[in-house]
Amino acid sequence: MADPRNDLETLIELMAKLPGLGPRSARRAVLHLIKKRGVLLSPLAEAMTRVGQTARECLNCGNIATGDLCDICTSEKRANGQICVVEDVADLWAMERAAVFRGRYHVLGGTLSALDGIGPEELRIPKLRDRISAESVSEVILALGATIDGQTTAHYIVDELPGVTVTSLAQGVPVGGELDYLDDGTITAALNARKSL
Amino acid sequence: MADPRNDLETLIELMAKLPGLGPRSARRAVLHLIKKRGVLLSPLAEAMTRVGQTARECLNCGNIATGDLCDICTSEKRANGQICVVEDVADLWAMERAAVFRGRYHVLGGTLSALDGIGPEELRIPKLRDRISAESVSEVILALGATIDGQTTAHYIVDELPGVTVTSLAQGVPVGGELDYLDDGTITAALNARKSL
Repeated sequence: MADPRNDLETLIELMAKLPGLGPRSARRAVLHLIKKRGVLLSPLAEAMTRVGQTARECLNCGNIATGDLCDICTSEKRANGQICVVEDVADLWAMERAAVFRGRYHVLGGTLSALDGIGPEELRIPKLRDRISAESVSEVILALGATIDGQTTAHYIVDELPGVTVTSLAQGVPVGGELDYLDDGTITAALNARKSL
Repeated sequence: MADPRNDLETLIELMAKLPGLGPRSARRAVLHLIKKRGVLLSPLAEAMTRVGQTARECLNCGNIATGDLCDICTSEKRANGQICVVEDVADLWAMERAAVFRGRYHVLGGTLSALDGIGPEELRIPKLRDRISAESVSEVILALGATIDGQTTAHYIVDELPGVTVTSLAQGVPVGGELDYLDDGTITAALNARKSL
């Protein structure tokens, strides 16, 4: 029989590696798991095992998939000539939650960063170029973060795709946002992009 | 093959039930798990499965054990006649990290609470009474929270154990604590329990 002390400590150490959890909250989470063994611990272990066995990267867009291609890339309904470029799968999920975009995605897996040595090859940008003709894309919508790295990446993609319509999400006041709490950059962007009513 | 979308969503929903994680941080954690499949997801699934199969409650003290009794209750070295009463296994772990107490523990599993309908029977207090004679206990050390419920529980235990030396952890300024950040109650307790140097 394995040492029970070690099993518990291993579990706590692994949990502490999750983003948002530290050693203390990992211990609390593990105690909670043990208390709720039947309804939480066992189902969680099973769900993790299943996802570990099935989840992989879509060869086309970089989304999470179970086969070579993800649900969105295999769906003919989503082939509307639009590709939305996002940094990360989390951003793709955020777009899907809004349920307003009906095209396909391209997950870069990060942003260009000279400091971190991340160039176009690391970011699936060549694959994006290939998809433009292969999927007869009419518009590439950049949904990248409003950070320096995000904007650098946006400019690079525009230069890489001559002859393709490249657009970007609008910047401005968030819905429900109060001016008092917004940073200067957002107010400047919102003012410059003001619309006549 | 099971629906991959559902597997992922199940995993996120279960993760969101952990203390300290909400829906957003659960999504972030799951993406992190998938990225680090080999080094984190699979080991975590295995550790959870193992802990789920082996971990149970020590019949004597309420600590987490793999057999009927936990490591501390089976160790003869820890039978020094002292029992430290704690609310929760997390508190037991905190005591063990300090590595200063060499006796055994008794995990109540909470505090008396009229509001929540938690009485002595729910708290393993009868079992504590049984252990006093069975393990020839000379001192019961109460390490309960300095809350109203914790102190109510402490008073109840003192009344329940006539003829037994019952002590309690000292209250005062935490090591490294600055007076400016302490609440009035702690300063009052520290002043009342002042020591001559």
